[in-house]
Amino acid sequence: SRSINLAVIPGDGIGQEVVAEGLKVLSAVLPQDVKLETKEYDFGAKRYHATGETLTDADLDSLKQHDAILLGAIGDPSVPSGVLERGFLLKLRFAFDHHVNLRPSKLLPGVATPLAGQPEIDFVVVREGTEGPYTGNGGTIRKGTEHEVATEVSVNTAYGVERVVRDAFERAQARPRKKLTLVHKNNVLTFAGHLWTNIFNQVAQEYPEVTTDYIHVDAATIYLVTDPARFDVIVTDNLFGDIITDLAAAVSGGIGVAASGNINPSGEFPSMFEPVHGSAPDIAGQGKADPTATVLSVALLLRHLGYDAEADRIDAAVAADLTERAGQPARSTSGIGDALAVRVAG
Amino acid sequence: SRSINLAVIPGDGIGQEVVAEGLKVLSAVLPQDVKLETKEYDFGAKRYHATGETLTDADLDSLKQHDAILLGAIGDPSVPSGVLERGFLLKLRFAFDHHVNLRPSKLLPGVATPLAGQPEIDFVVVREGTEGPYTGNGGTIRKGTEHEVATEVSVNTAYGVERVVRDAFERAQARPRKKLTLVHKNNVLTFAGHLWTNIFNQVAQEYPEVTTDYIHVDAATIYLVTDPARFDVIVTDNLFGDIITDLAAAVSGGIGVAASGNINPSGEFPSMFEPVHGSAPDIAGQGKADPTATVLSVALLLRHLGYDAEADRIDAAVAADLTERAGQPARSTSGIGDALAVRVAG
Ligand SMILES: CC(C)[C@H](C(=O)O)[C@@H](O)C(=O)O
Ligand SMILES: CC(C)[C@H](C(=O)O)[C@@H](O)C(=O)O
Repeated sequence: SRSINLAVIPGDGIGQEVVAEGLKVLSAVLPQDVKLETKEYDFGAKRYHATGETLTDADLDSLKQHDAILLGAIGDPSVPSGVLERGFLLKLRFAFDHHVNLRPSKLLPGVATPLAGQPEIDFVVVREGTEGPYTGNGGTIRKGTEHEVATEVSVNTAYGVERVVRDAFERAQARPRKKLTLVHKNNVLTFAGHLWTNIFNQVAQEYPEVTTDYIHVDAATIYLVTDPARFDVIVTDNLFGDIITDLAAAVSGGIGVAASGNINPSGEFPSMFEPVHGSAPDIAGQGKADPTATVLSVALLLRHLGYDAEADRIDAAVAADLTERAGQPARSTSGIGDALAVRVAG
Repeated sequence: SRSINLAVIPGDGIGQEVVAEGLKVLSAVLPQDVKLETKEYDFGAKRYHATGETLTDADLDSLKQHDAILLGAIGDPSVPSGVLERGFLLKLRFAFDHHVNLRPSKLLPGVATPLAGQPEIDFVVVREGTEGPYTGNGGTIRKGTEHEVATEVSVNTAYGVERVVRDAFERAQARPRKKLTLVHKNNVLTFAGHLWTNIFNQVAQEYPEVTTDYIHVDAATIYLVTDPARFDVIVTDNLFGDIITDLAAAVSGGIGVAASGNINPSGEFPSMFEPVHGSAPDIAGQGKADPTATVLSVALLLRHLGYDAEADRIDAAVAADLTERAGQPARSTSGIGDALAVRVAG
């Protein structure tokens, strides 16, 4: 008999609320014969204030035992900027070698977009997750003086770039349009840009059916608002991916519906699935948060574990629910979760 | 009697065409008593192919003699990516210490935007121009092998950050809304982020009338499409500024109308004014390019040299022309230049 042993990290703010709905839908969609075990972890601001810990080695050992991780959101104004981001989220992505940060963008019927004319949007960004300017390399000298110098070092390796580029080609190959766009800034960041572009062009030889192109990250933001239909799969660096996926989420329905996966494709470590949005402390505890992004992250999780039919059922339920929601009064967090749970079970 | 001694760099592709119109409007707007002298320079792809030179020390000495520089666009597919960008454009910005890269965004009446509902957009980005990931620091080892490592180093100094932050506070103070937003990624790039945030907060003490806020660069791209009216003045790092100003241009009428100034506020070196767009080789020589961005860059140039009334006349002429253009068949490059020249003279 099959089973899923899931680590659940609700985290801070609305993380608690949306994860509850994600689990509700997960339970509803799974066939009877699949045993779902969950273990909840208390990472986030509260634990940090109580113990000073963000993520210990023992925590990592424990998390490692799971098949996958579902994360709500981590972050609170009471914790200095960077502490939980670097000490928990990035630490986990790096420790579990989540080098494929997967962020699909699809504008569903009936969903509001800030763009005029309801353009067609259906692409996926493959963001590198373990290199670039996110490595924490760099430092500060003469801190706090008028002679302070602070550096940030973007580290890019052939090993790290090739594996994520290869993953992106595989995904492009599997999609009907078979198109892959490299986004970088190779005219200015010439060292990293040369590495990315070279490897991209080399791997492209092995995928003759995939159409490729290259655009600078600045130009990419223009296309994302003027011609998002030009994109099918995008592969890009950690920081550029961070920036363009927030923009991509904004144009394709907002961060209320943007899902993501932090994936370790080899399966050596559990992958982690989370909504793109943050902990939104301003609306926490009010039942106002939209759990859709978390539910869609559960779909990514299921697909990663091989439950494709169940993932499809969630995607279809969300599409139907969003169409029904259009023009209706806003529903509560649990109201949306309930509706989705009914749909996926039905 | 007054005079302007201008260096003119038409450059590549449509650069030639749009600069001609910029000069036409400049001549038309200047009072009789101002003597305009121009000297044309041949930088760009043609000279690079002929001589291998992009910008020599002798060129810099010669350019240094001018009051200001008007640039069209540099870049051609026949030159490898990065050669002209690093060898000409960035070299000039660094050599002349253009640390204030000024990029206003204003959605004028009648101008098409990809955003629904014609939002109010009127802000200016003060992009740092001489530091950050643009310094060319970094390198490559084991190039071309499977063990290649490429690094890019973002260099940030208290000196460099403070002067641009101060400039931005001055600009915010001089505007009706008096609001300044720092855009960075201080939760991940903690070394540089700490320096930027600290200096920003320190300088803020001296400007009690200016309202300040901070947002991460990824979130900034969301606001630029969902709520651009929230911005008045933005100050940011070189790379973040590059990215968000292309997006800002896209939402406020496109790069056809986006102007910029590479400013050395001390006047030690001449400042350079250029449209945000590139050389667009695909439409070069066809009279299709919109010279408006160059004409608006001429207005920035005039304001920098103290010709405020003339700059205002150009801005008003452009606004009137854009309103008139709405819904009309596209005019040629020189047709638009002629119309603007008539308006500013009248
Ligand atoms: C919270 C932050 C560290 C994170 C990132 O920059 O990756 C977030 O913006 C994201 O995109 O998941
Ligand atoms: C051409 C390129 C080097 C340049 C930059 O990145 O600064 C351009 O994108 C700009 O914004 O002026």
